[in-house]
Amino acid sequence: MSSDIAIDPQLVERCIMTLAQYGAHGETGVWRLVYSPEWEAAQETVAAWCRDIGMDVRRDAVGNVWGRLSGREDGKSIVSGSHIDSQAPGGRYDGALGVIAAYVAMRALVERFGPPRRTLDLLSLCEEEGSRYPAADFWGSRAIVGRIAPGDTERIEGFDGATIGDGMRSVGLDPARVDEARRDDIDCFIELHIEQGPLLELAGLPVGIVTGITGPREYWVELTGRSDHAGARPMDLRRDPMAGAAEIISGVIDTAHRMGRPAVTTVGRIGAEPNLVPAVPEKVTFTVDARHPDPAQRALLYERHEGLMRAVATRRDLDLAWQITGNQEPAPCDPELVSLLEDAARQQAIPFMRIPSGAAHDSQQMARAARIAMLFVRSKDGRSHTPAEFTSVEDATAGIAVLAAALHRLAY
Amino acid sequence: MSSDIAIDPQLVERCIMTLAQYGAHGETGVWRLVYSPEWEAAQETVAAWCRDIGMDVRRDAVGNVWGRLSGREDGKSIVSGSHIDSQAPGGRYDGALGVIAAYVAMRALVERFGPPRRTLDLLSLCEEEGSRYPAADFWGSRAIVGRIAPGDTERIEGFDGATIGDGMRSVGLDPARVDEARRDDIDCFIELHIEQGPLLELAGLPVGIVTGITGPREYWVELTGRSDHAGARPMDLRRDPMAGAAEIISGVIDTAHRMGRPAVTTVGRIGAEPNLVPAVPEKVTFTVDARHPDPAQRALLYERHEGLMRAVATRRDLDLAWQITGNQEPAPCDPELVSLLEDAARQQAIPFMRIPSGAAHDSQQMARAARIAMLFVRSKDGRSHTPAEFTSVEDATAGIAVLAAALHRLAY
Repeated sequence: MSSDIAIDPQLVERCIMTLAQYGAHGETGVWRLVYSPEWEAAQETVAAWCRDIGMDVRRDAVGNVWGRLSGREDGKSIVSGSHIDSQAPGGRYDGALGVIAAYVAMRALVERFGPPRRTLDLLSLCEEEGSRYPAADFWGSRAIVGRIAPGDTERIEGFDGATIGDGMRSVGLDPARVDEARRDDIDCFIELHIEQGPLLELAGLPVGIVTGITGPREYWVELTGRSDHAGARPMDLRRDPMAGAAEIISGVIDTAHRMGRPAVTTVGRIGAEPNLVPAVPEKVTFTVDARHPDPAQRALLYERHEGLMRAVATRRDLDLAWQITGNQEPAPCDPELVSLLEDAARQQAIPFMRIPSGAAHDSQQMARAARIAMLFVRSKDGRSHTPAEFTSVEDATAGIAVLAAALHRLAY
Repeated sequence: MSSDIAIDPQLVERCIMTLAQYGAHGETGVWRLVYSPEWEAAQETVAAWCRDIGMDVRRDAVGNVWGRLSGREDGKSIVSGSHIDSQAPGGRYDGALGVIAAYVAMRALVERFGPPRRTLDLLSLCEEEGSRYPAADFWGSRAIVGRIAPGDTERIEGFDGATIGDGMRSVGLDPARVDEARRDDIDCFIELHIEQGPLLELAGLPVGIVTGITGPREYWVELTGRSDHAGARPMDLRRDPMAGAAEIISGVIDTAHRMGRPAVTTVGRIGAEPNLVPAVPEKVTFTVDARHPDPAQRALLYERHEGLMRAVATRRDLDLAWQITGNQEPAPCDPELVSLLEDAARQQAIPFMRIPSGAAHDSQQMARAARIAMLFVRSKDGRSHTPAEFTSVEDATAGIAVLAAALHRLAY
């Protein structure tokens, strides 16, 4: 009975604290960029954990760590894990907790039940965040599903100006071999992750079972009018891109709000040119990040945003241009795996709810080559991407217990 | 008869082209910062012009050039001029044309009528724009009316990090002697300036007679909410300072628009922190530049702006803070001088209209120590603070003819 799988909270806490040392930043933060010495040390630690429980361990062509418990039967493998890189700075839990969860769950299974019937793989991924190489987000999972374009390794630059190929070489990886990271033998990928939002906390629940991952799209919008003297040009004769931007920003935010959960729209970046106090700007540039997990509602959200932008620009006689700088299709979780996770949670009497993921995840990439599912654990104050990020050992342990029970059902 | 005063358009054009050489920037631009070698050369050229028409010339303690035609009678002097520094880059006309106008008008008067009955002073001022030392705007005129605080010369820094005191020393001026620039013997200051706006062009008129100078006020507004994950935090649970800023920006711009001319409100600068695409900002900072020449309407404009900012911040649960970083009282032009300019224009059959000044000017400072009046000449497309700034020689000549006639009535 999978309800017999005991998850040791002290082991969970020890693992969290151990990984948190690598790239420790201030009291509770982590600053662990892909291919840095601290990232290397964290990956090496994960590899050592895996070896200690009898796994076959290898690094793939982009630096992902794979730990394998080979199954008695042939067939595609059951994979669990997450990413080991952090935001700059981030917290101890984003990504790292999913790697720890896979390790703690698989360790419990192998200790209690011995070698699995089907192959179990632990996966510790690299550069999910894009915090060192912004255009290389989901680098580890994209490599696995074959979504790194030829030349990307020499084209994509980090914030320090060096390419990701340089970074790979600095840790002994050969950028020419990126293709070798590709896998086509994965049955399913189950990722445990902190929620990064407030919904579980508001519901008073430790665990969420993810129904699907939202589809984000990122627009860079440029509105151009005419720069004028702030005193000498009457209001009725201006072509003010700041007035247009303010109207659009209010409008897109209000549109998502009115559509209701889980629609979200965020304007996170903005800038004006020439950015002078006593001058109407010539140009205002801002980003629109808009997400919805349902394809039809998502299309409607973008249609409304784009229609509003065009209408405001036309009415205000402004030139409007936008680029879509990021776009990911929503990834529904596999219904069978969702049911299996729900059964596992019920069986262990762990309270949960269904929840959509508003954040993007490696699972979204993995969905191109495998069935996916995700477990969320409660985030304190819904915070993430900050050293203030926190998940209790109790909640983490509850999530890992569900994961272990599910892996047991799948692999034993 | 003052209608006999002939203004030579070729002299006007020659003067414009001569001054435009000092700090020439591209085809039509000027980049002439106070206390730079090109500024020195321009002031020296003005001084040479003055000497050539028999003026007594001196530099005062901050570097303003004064050219004097002493009157036969004692009494306060009649002063005309403007500033010689430019924006970075600016055009050939902003400021410079007022210095040229005073020179061309006084030259015509002295050639036609000989020495004046009352003393005429030409004044070429320094650092009106604040384009080298942003906190030292109106430096030359402030020195004359005693509005430079002790220590300002060593406290105010330029964009290059050096103090304005350093700049003064570099051209042989002693910062300790700034007080000596003060004057209390000025009866009136009449400044000719380009309009910098589109109203004369729209009315089809070469000349405007300024009724008063607007009162600008500058706010730096800071709205603080909570930074959240752009995907994981539902819209209804956000404290989004970008949403608040957009609503306030739309609101203040709309408020000025609805109050009608000459109310103006401009948001020229904006920034978000942390300025990341996938994060609700923690803080949004922006400026509000709001102006009205009528004291009561001006107070109402600010009351509406401040009320709106408070209401939006309260409703959206945002922290609101602002600083007032600049504030100048409106300066009405002297009614007697306005009438005199109108009579002078009518007498010479030069079409004009009354016009408020939405830009700040040295005249506003001079108003503390003298009666003031201003003449505007038509700006092509209402442009200024750009190399694209343009005023035709014909329009400039028309404005100078009005100025010369007015100076004749006052001083002869």
